[in-house]
Amino acid sequence: MRKAGLASYGPDSMGGFIVTRPRGYALWEKVQENLDEWFKGTGVDNAYFPMFIPESYLDKESEFVEGFDPEVAWVTEGGNQELEERLAVRPTSESIITPYMSQWTRSHRDLPLRLNQWCSVVRWEATETKPFFRTKEFLWQEGHTAHESAEEAWDETVTRLGQYEKLYEDVLAIPVMRGRKPEHDKFPGGETTTTVEALMPDGKSLQGATSHDLGQSFAEAYDLTYVDEEEEEQVAHTTSWGLSWRALGGLIMTHSDDQGLVLPPTVAPEQVVIVPIWQEDTREDVLQYSTEVAAELEEAGVRVHLDDRDERNPGFKFNEWELKGVPLRIEIGPNEVEDEELTFAHRPDGEQSVVSRDGLVDSVDAHLDAVQEKLYESAEERLEENVREADSPEEILGTIGKHGGYVKTPWCGDEACEQVIKEKIAAEIVMVPFDEEHEPDADECTLCGDEATKTAYFAKTY
Amino acid sequence: MRKAGLASYGPDSMGGFIVTRPRGYALWEKVQENLDEWFKGTGVDNAYFPMFIPESYLDKESEFVEGFDPEVAWVTEGGNQELEERLAVRPTSESIITPYMSQWTRSHRDLPLRLNQWCSVVRWEATETKPFFRTKEFLWQEGHTAHESAEEAWDETVTRLGQYEKLYEDVLAIPVMRGRKPEHDKFPGGETTTTVEALMPDGKSLQGATSHDLGQSFAEAYDLTYVDEEEEEQVAHTTSWGLSWRALGGLIMTHSDDQGLVLPPTVAPEQVVIVPIWQEDTREDVLQYSTEVAAELEEAGVRVHLDDRDERNPGFKFNEWELKGVPLRIEIGPNEVEDEELTFAHRPDGEQSVVSRDGLVDSVDAHLDAVQEKLYESAEERLEENVREADSPEEILGTIGKHGGYVKTPWCGDEACEQVIKEKIAAEIVMVPFDEEHEPDADECTLCGDEATKTAYFAKTY
Repeated sequence: MRKAGLASYGPDSMGGFIVTRPRGYALWEKVQENLDEWFKGTGVDNAYFPMFIPESYLDKESEFVEGFDPEVAWVTEGGNQELEERLAVRPTSESIITPYMSQWTRSHRDLPLRLNQWCSVVRWEATETKPFFRTKEFLWQEGHTAHESAEEAWDETVTRLGQYEKLYEDVLAIPVMRGRKPEHDKFPGGETTTTVEALMPDGKSLQGATSHDLGQSFAEAYDLTYVDEEEEEQVAHTTSWGLSWRALGGLIMTHSDDQGLVLPPTVAPEQVVIVPIWQEDTREDVLQYSTEVAAELEEAGVRVHLDDRDERNPGFKFNEWELKGVPLRIEIGPNEVEDEELTFAHRPDGEQSVVSRDGLVDSVDAHLDAVQEKLYESAEERLEENVREADSPEEILGTIGKHGGYVKTPWCGDEACEQVIKEKIAAEIVMVPFDEEHEPDADECTLCGDEATKTAYFAKTY
Repeated sequence: MRKAGLASYGPDSMGGFIVTRPRGYALWEKVQENLDEWFKGTGVDNAYFPMFIPESYLDKESEFVEGFDPEVAWVTEGGNQELEERLAVRPTSESIITPYMSQWTRSHRDLPLRLNQWCSVVRWEATETKPFFRTKEFLWQEGHTAHESAEEAWDETVTRLGQYEKLYEDVLAIPVMRGRKPEHDKFPGGETTTTVEALMPDGKSLQGATSHDLGQSFAEAYDLTYVDEEEEEQVAHTTSWGLSWRALGGLIMTHSDDQGLVLPPTVAPEQVVIVPIWQEDTREDVLQYSTEVAAELEEAGVRVHLDDRDERNPGFKFNEWELKGVPLRIEIGPNEVEDEELTFAHRPDGEQSVVSRDGLVDSVDAHLDAVQEKLYESAEERLEENVREADSPEEILGTIGKHGGYVKTPWCGDEACEQVIKEKIAAEIVMVPFDEEHEPDADECTLCGDEATKTAYFAKTY
């Protein structure tokens, strides 16, 4: 992460913060571009709310404040004066956005109301810093919507989860599984939390993004009501949903190898790097040919970089661009110039091939597609191999202890049964598949023997 | 601003903060799109630095901390614990970005280094809230660069100022004047502050954006050095430059009229609104024709909205879209359908015309261009009429008191001479034109009679 120039640790006296360098931020911009377009295409408008929230606003939803209060950073002084009321640096913005939605909503015609903001939030956790995974400040988007009915709010929740799934699978080349969080692990004050979970190579599950059906509790706390078609006052139903730069952490961890980062072509700042290889007498020809190839690719919309630095040799350049994750390298030496060919080497496996100069753009497109596919397939294979079943608490413990990954098992729904596992190894229930997609495979909870109502996926987490 | 749905005031207990609603945020996105593309096209990379800055970092540049310390909001508690060191919510990020640039810069090959971030900053001023003009938190971009020589740093400063000028003139349709801030009003710790100034209709000058040549003081304070080609260690030269959502304040104030907002087509979320006018018997025909017109425009890349609401009459719709600033309205009734024509009404003057259905897209483009031009021209005319000269302190006071606008006058460069004016009316020197563009018009300072070295532009400001 640091060698590839993605991030640096924050100031020593400020543990838990990171600096996102241009190569890291460029990845976040790709995430933004995609999600932002999908959100706008499905009725969401961007807005921006204050980064501070008065303590009295936070306090209005009791479960919410209980959940977030321990993690809040407080502004207590401004302009050389102590403030009358402490201001929370937003840990998430339900408690300031919902009261404004309330101001803007009069009748059913004002609904649905769908807002999103791209911003950073702060959660003061005392754990070790892990860039893009565990940081006190993180970049994210948070969507907040209000609807007339419970059904519409649930549809919204699932729509956004589907967009997160699409981001992971189609853009980041990471397969995910989707489902609900257990009751005891849902968003504080909410009704149902849905999640997309991704398996990391170390066997832990990454909570990729969450979409919350908040029911009516926030609408009640912040007085978000509307007049329906029968002129009756009704309480709205709200949702919220967020994806943070953890997605970048997942991306980096999923596709990297011993040579360095491997970036899917969809998000790579440079999809192709051209490395010219010359001696003094072939320099001019090789550079001219390389420049023409670069121009043709750029013209076709490929993100290409010609590395014509004099002071570095080709071996150094190969290593550097592999470290930085460029998916496709084109090598051009005097032979390539003479034969009107190009030598391609692509990640993740270093596969080499010689292609003709004619049809350059098509060849590049095909190779980039192949890289994207290889990355997804290898992650998918790992996921498929790492969902196992277990028939007893010992088997759950043993399987996760030995292999990592997921263990799916019938579960009664009681938090106490999760505790049995959680106390012994740091594994928990990360997901319960949607009812409509999975039935529990057995009648009895593997942990207590009571009636099983759900299938639980146990895994270690970040 | 509030009726057009651009912004709301923040929580009552939190004076100085605003909520940016979707129609306001969409304007900010247009500003971002343009500047971001120009920045990237001229060697700037986006990055993201922590929103907090340790007090010890702020303290390292003494003029800087003196300038900003009175306006800082401090985080003193996090995770239920008092922090060992107070953290400033960034008022601007030189004091955290420069030390990182130092880490990343070894040799002259690492320079120039050009970074930008889009974020919000907080400055705790105790003045009245004015949405997009005076707010404690505001959205902006801040660029930070490091260079080998003073000359390159100055070129960078002027390049960015030129991009701000282009944004105001070509995108926001607001003519600006550019120059230096007086010595006593430059960025604390910097060498030279350059500015673009725009005249608002109330006769005050808006500081549209500033670009600072910081010389070597920040590089010295934060140890930003590099090894040059002769293997000698050198101190770098830095710049910083920022444009905030004040640009939106300027936009709104410049082009609005008694009917409401008027938005230049370049930034209008809807460039065209189609209002169908029907009776029961013509409804179907009118709506079908309107839908076809909307589809053709959308296909051509025009941002068009068909207002087919049943529950509102055309007059209500006209008023609403005028309030919201849509530059071009197309009215479609049974006559238009029959004659295969369209009735256009465009802002800012309400000019109406009937155009043929053939050549729709060309007609719309021409009208949108005309609106953009009219807006710019009327602002330019106002600016030209409101730059006056004065030969005595009394005349400066009298002219600004009577007309507002700018008074240009020869000046010796001494702050005391500005004070004479500032104490009597709240006008100050907002700008000194670049030497290469203007010579002082007389030999003596209008205020003290000493030798004049500059031309000063006095005006009231925000």
